[in-house]
Parts: sequence; C-alpha cells; structure tokens
Amino acid sequence: MKSEWTRRKMLAALAGAPFVGGVLGRGAAQADESPPADPTKVQGGPTSAFGERSAYESIARLPSYGVISGTPLQSLHGTITPADLHFERHHAGIPAIDPNQHSLMVHGLVERPLKFSMDDLMRFPAVTRTCFLECSGNLQFKAGEETSPQMLCGLTSQSEWTGVALSTILREVGAKPTAKWILAEGSDAAKMTRSIPIEKALDDAILAYAQNGEAVRPAQGYPLRLLLPGWEGNTNVKWLRRLELGDQPFMTREETSKYTEPVAGDQARQFSFTMDARSVITTPTYPTQVSRGWNEIRGLAWSGRGRIARVEVSVDGGQKWEDARLVGPVLAKAHTRFALPWNWAGGGAELASRATDETGYVQPTRRQLIDARGRGSLPYHLNSIVSWLVEADGRVIYKAEPWA
Amino acid sequence: MKSEWTRRKMLAALAGAPFVGGVLGRGAAQADESPPADPTKVQGGPTSAFGERSAYESIARLPSYGVISGTPLQSLHGTITPADLHFERHHAGIPAIDPNQHSLMVHGLVERPLKFSMDDLMRFPAVTRTCFLECSGNLQFKAGEETSPQMLCGLTSQSEWTGVALSTILREVGAKPTAKWILAEGSDAAKMTRSIPIEKALDDAILAYAQNGEAVRPAQGYPLRLLLPGWEGNTNVKWLRRLELGDQPFMTREETSKYTEPVAGDQARQFSFTMDARSVITTPTYPTQVSRGWNEIRGLAWSGRGRIARVEVSVDGGQKWEDARLVGPVLAKAHTRFALPWNWAGGGAELASRATDETGYVQPTRRQLIDARGRGSLPYHLNSIVSWLVEADGRVIYKAEPWA
Repeated sequence: MKSEWTRRKMLAALAGAPFVGGVLGRGAAQADESPPADPTKVQGGPTSAFGERSAYESIARLPSYGVISGTPLQSLHGTITPADLHFERHHAGIPAIDPNQHSLMVHGLVERPLKFSMDDLMRFPAVTRTCFLECSGNLQFKAGEETSPQMLCGLTSQSEWTGVALSTILREVGAKPTAKWILAEGSDAAKMTRSIPIEKALDDAILAYAQNGEAVRPAQGYPLRLLLPGWEGNTNVKWLRRLELGDQPFMTREETSKYTEPVAGDQARQFSFTMDARSVITTPTYPTQVSRGWNEIRGLAWSGRGRIARVEVSVDGGQKWEDARLVGPVLAKAHTRFALPWNWAGGGAELASRATDETGYVQPTRRQLIDARGRGSLPYHLNSIVSWLVEADGRVIYKAEPWA
Repeated sequence: MKSEWTRRKMLAALAGAPFVGGVLGRGAAQADESPPADPTKVQGGPTSAFGERSAYESIARLPSYGVISGTPLQSLHGTITPADLHFERHHAGIPAIDPNQHSLMVHGLVERPLKFSMDDLMRFPAVTRTCFLECSGNLQFKAGEETSPQMLCGLTSQSEWTGVALSTILREVGAKPTAKWILAEGSDAAKMTRSIPIEKALDDAILAYAQNGEAVRPAQGYPLRLLLPGWEGNTNVKWLRRLELGDQPFMTREETSKYTEPVAGDQARQFSFTMDARSVITTPTYPTQVSRGWNEIRGLAWSGRGRIARVEVSVDGGQKWEDARLVGPVLAKAHTRFALPWNWAGGGAELASRATDETGYVQPTRRQLIDARGRGSLPYHLNSIVSWLVEADGRVIYKAEPWA
C-alpha cells in the first residue's frame, strides 16, 4: 500500500514537475508537505530540466517601487550571487528584447561605423571575469534597527561575466585618435546613457552577453550589457544598443542632474566612476539570533580600485580591531569573503568591519565621510563603516545612526 | 490608448509575475508574445523577487531515465554552471529533507562520537572553493553523429562550493590514529555509501552546504553533501547523514559491484577515485552551423590532479596541434576555459582538443585508452580525445567511432 507521500511524489513525477520545491513552491517560506521522517525509506523524486531550490529556503530579492531589487547578502555564502538574485536598479523598467533583432551600433569618431548582431559579437575572442557590480546609491542611510544587510546595502552583487573586450570592438571599427569619450546607450525606455572615458574602454571594459555561465538575464541587460569592472552600476549600461565615440563627455541627464555628488565647499564632483573600498558583515546581522560560544563573523569586502588587502573586524564598536581571514582567491574588483572566529560569552557587543584595498585606501567612518562630503552628498558613494549591535539576549540589530 | 503589449505587461505587473520569460515561460524555445519593434518606446517591466531567464533562451538540462540530467555544455560560457543546470546522477531519486531535522552523525574510531545539526555545522569556520564535479561514467561511448557535448559528456559541472572543511570536524570528534578510512552515507533510499581514505578527508574534503552562493539544491544534496575536489562524482555523497571512521575500506556495493574498472590482463582497478585530465570543445559542435571567416573554437578542460597546464587544439584531426589560450584564473581541479581563433575558409575540418595537466598527464586517444584498459573497461573513467567534423556546408557533427 502506498503512503500518501509516495502517491503525491509519483503524481508529481508523472506530471513532469520537480518533486521538492517546484516551480510554484520556490521561495516559499515553508514546505506545504511534510517530508518523510526517514527519507531512506521512500524512493526519491526524479531528475528534471531544472534543479529548483528547496521549499525550505526562503531566499529572495526585495523588490522596491518596481525599480529596485536588493540581493539578500545575509543569506549568501562564498562570493557568487545567483543570477536570479543579482540586484536590479532600472530607470524605465525591463525592456523585452528579441536577441535576433538586437544589434550594437558603433559610430562617431571611427574609421568604419559598424552594426554588430549578437552572432557577430559572439565570434570575437571571448573574455571572462568575475567582479562585483554595485549601485552608487547603495546605502539606506535612514535605516532603523530592524535592517538587514539586504535592506541596508543589497545593491551589490557578484557574477562571472563573459563577453567581448570593448577594446577588441574599438580596434574593429578603428577608433580615431581624437576619440576621448564614448557614449553608451541602452534600449530601455529611458535610453539610459552615460559617457565613458576611452581609457576605461581600452582597459577592462567588456560587452557582456553571459553571466554565471548562461545568457545575461533580461533584468541584467539581455542580450548585451556594458560591464565596467569596479565602476558605479549605472555606467554598466544594460540592453546596450549604441556606442558613439566623441572628443568630450556627452553631458547626459544621468551625469548632470543625477550621479554627481556635492562635496565640501559648495563644490560638486562629477564622473565619480570608481566605487570606493567597502565592507559589510553579513553574519551575524539582523535578523539573526546569536548563540553563546564559538561563531564565525563573516562578511564581504570589495574595492573598485583593485584587490582587497585587509579587512579588520571589531567586536567592541571600534576600540580594538583584529585582522580577519580573507578567503581566496582574492580577485581584483571582486567581492572578497572575510571571516573571523568569535567566542561570544554573552553580554553586549558591537560588530564592525573595515576594509583596506591594495592602493592603501581605508574604508572611512561615517564622520569622516560627512566631513569630506558634507551632508548634501546624499545619497551616492556612501561606503562608511557600519556596525551591528548584539544585545544581551543574542538578538542582533543594525546600529541606526542619524546621518549627521 | 494603450497597446495590447502594454496592457499585458501591466496585467503581469499587477499579478506580481515577472514580465519577460516568467515562471511558466522559462526555458521555452520561443517567446509567446512578440516584443515591441522599438523597446525604447515602451515602459519596461517591474522588478521582482527573482530575475528569470529570457523566454528566448532554450537552455535546459537533458533528463534521462529519471536518474540523470546532463549540463548543456554547448550553451554555456565561462566556467560556472548555474545551480539549476548542474548535472545529476541519482541512485534512488532525490529525497525530500527538512534541514531542521537533518543531522550528521560522526562515529566509529573517534574520541567523541557527535551528531551535528545544520546550525552546528554553520558555526564552524567556512571554506569556499570553486571546482568541477564529474560523474565517472561521463562518456556516451555509443554516440551517433547528432550528439551534442551535453549528450556526449554533460555529466560535468562547476560550482563555487562553501561548507566546513572535513578536517575541522575530524578534529572536533578526535579521529583516532587507527582511523584510515571513512564511510560516507547519504539519506537517499539507496543509502548511497562510499569509503574515503583519511588522507583525502584531511586534505581538501568539504562538508558543503552552499553552492554558487546559496543553499545546495535538493538535487545536489540539500542540505549537506560531501565534496571531494577532483574525485569521481559518486564519492561526493549527497544528503550526507553519517560518517563512520574505520581501519579499512567498508567494501560497499558502490565500490565492489560498481565503480571499479576492468583493465588489461584480466585485472580490475578498485578505488579509482581521481578524475583524469580531459578536455572537450564546446563550440563549434553539434548542432552548430559554422560561418566562414573568423570564429573562436572554445571548450573546457579539467583535471582531478590539479591545474590544467596546456590545451592543444587541432583543426585537421590531429595532424597539427596549436596551443589554445587558457582563460584565467586557472584554478586547481577546476573547469578551465580554453579558446583559439580559427579562420574557416570552407571545406572539411576535424576539430579536436587535448589537455595536459600540471602533473604532465596528457589526455589519451581512444586507442591508447582501449589498449590500457581493454574493451571491458566500459563505461567508467573514459576521458579520451573526441573530435567534431565540420562539413563543407558548415554543419558540425560528432565524429562517431566504434569503441574498438
């Protein structure tokens, strides 16, 4: 006689649906069927076209206002962000694009203006690079105590990207010596545009068509996005359709009214491309409950300027700092996992991390950032040290501070 | 007046469903709605909890007999395999496991037999490693001309794995000096068991709970699997529930009746753990059509013994070989992407690749493999050079050969 569990499993198998989790159940907070007390007594489910998540895993992004989705940093391990959990920030939503109709036009100060189909681009030598991508507005500066890393700064993610080096395409079209800037334009309804210096284009810029092994997903720019390792997210133009070479910046809306930051002395800084070094503890953080005894404090550090050289961790709010272990390979312009064992004997604690990159740049305190930028600098390029309070009962909360 | 396209998009947004692709549309061969001719004229779709694949991408695994699913190597870029496309090979299906009920018992020749919950394991220092995992039966040796890399050898995949070093847990339980072998047992209905030498356990074995940043998926061993970098897939026991330390191998069914290979001279080799160096071209292959002019020949190479040192490519069936470019970082026991530009002027060609690892081991020809192993050695640990025929019209087919 077949158990109810076995019967359901067999029906699921017959229907071709995945056994555990399943398409509809994915991301659900709890399984709607109880698994057997002893799984070795029951034949398991069949293979399928896709291996879905366990129904016990509630991991998901946090969509906000229809234009932002933050990565659940507090639930992730290692350094890779699954493609469907990569953060998003759109200016006019996610366009629907037929890759067979899509092309990239390259024109302006070039010898041979050309239009490339996706098939054309894939014939050029491919380059692969693992790096982070971070939105320049990646700090929820008015965050309350019940703020997770995802809510606080989930607009940074990491992928293994593959595509054509932009330098390869610039050789193909014959960039003229007078070309100093490149306008990159997306296919979204905002026609998102940014001006990119030719030096970056020739250095490590990639026209990316693949992410974590597969085609870039629609929310990440399918079928083609510009990838500028270490540079603020919005310059990594998604749904890329046009590159125009010119002799000066194009002064688009996204570099005049947006994405410039006031600094001290009533000045503003423009073309603040590079993401500064930063770190954040991801565990233990809100909403974790810490248990007494040995735990491991873990987090991520990254810098748009190169490799992370050092991460220090403090458990007493910055009085004493201890070097954390960096988990290799430590790649340039990449999320780097750090870790430090911590024996919690009870009582309050304040956990903080501080990153230093290979250029010697040290992640600033909030006070240093305000002094350098002024209060008007909100909300871009805020990379200050943040901390997490461990309360006497082990509850962890974000240390909410007024901006100034 | 709203267009039909806009209306559907808005309805999808209201329903909370992803705009492009969507849960039901994922993996479909074609979009069931046409995108706008000019996507910049239409407001795009909203963000959501998960960023799904484009409906134009038909990528999927190839389930077979309910117990095998091959990775679509010919459609992937870079080195990471998306978790839901990682190959599967099960012995009694995929068990359903509540991680809160799951534990790992470690006993036998130890000072302190202990049972670890998943929470317990996650408190220990975490290690992260990117490596391949390959089934020892990863060659479809009776393949016809219309065979893709996925069909031929799709039982190899790569992930960034995170977990606890097994050596850490062996210190915790106090492995006795007399302990030489460890029995690893899974929670599936096959109670999949293999004997692992203590040297490997102390070297680089990992009790893995995360894959590509997130929890290991049910089909990959959720919530815990053994990871033995470079060793045949079946030793990487999924749904791991028990480790027993002993002074000799346990001679389980999976190392006596299975997973031993006859070799020349009526002998058999047992405990053939390490996967030998191997390579396969992934593009152009069946079912690709090659265009005249410059293309890039790309593929994957890997070795269970360490780093790939060299990959050679031939376009004339092995008469002449040329060194391919290796795409870094080249990691030990990891899929390594190789590439070589190729100017196809038309006419027939035979594309083949040959890997050499850092120990000097060279991937053998089919003839060398048969001579060393005998015909009876089917079907395990077959890593011979394979080739792809490019026909005069650009069609690419697998070079089907009889085994002997």
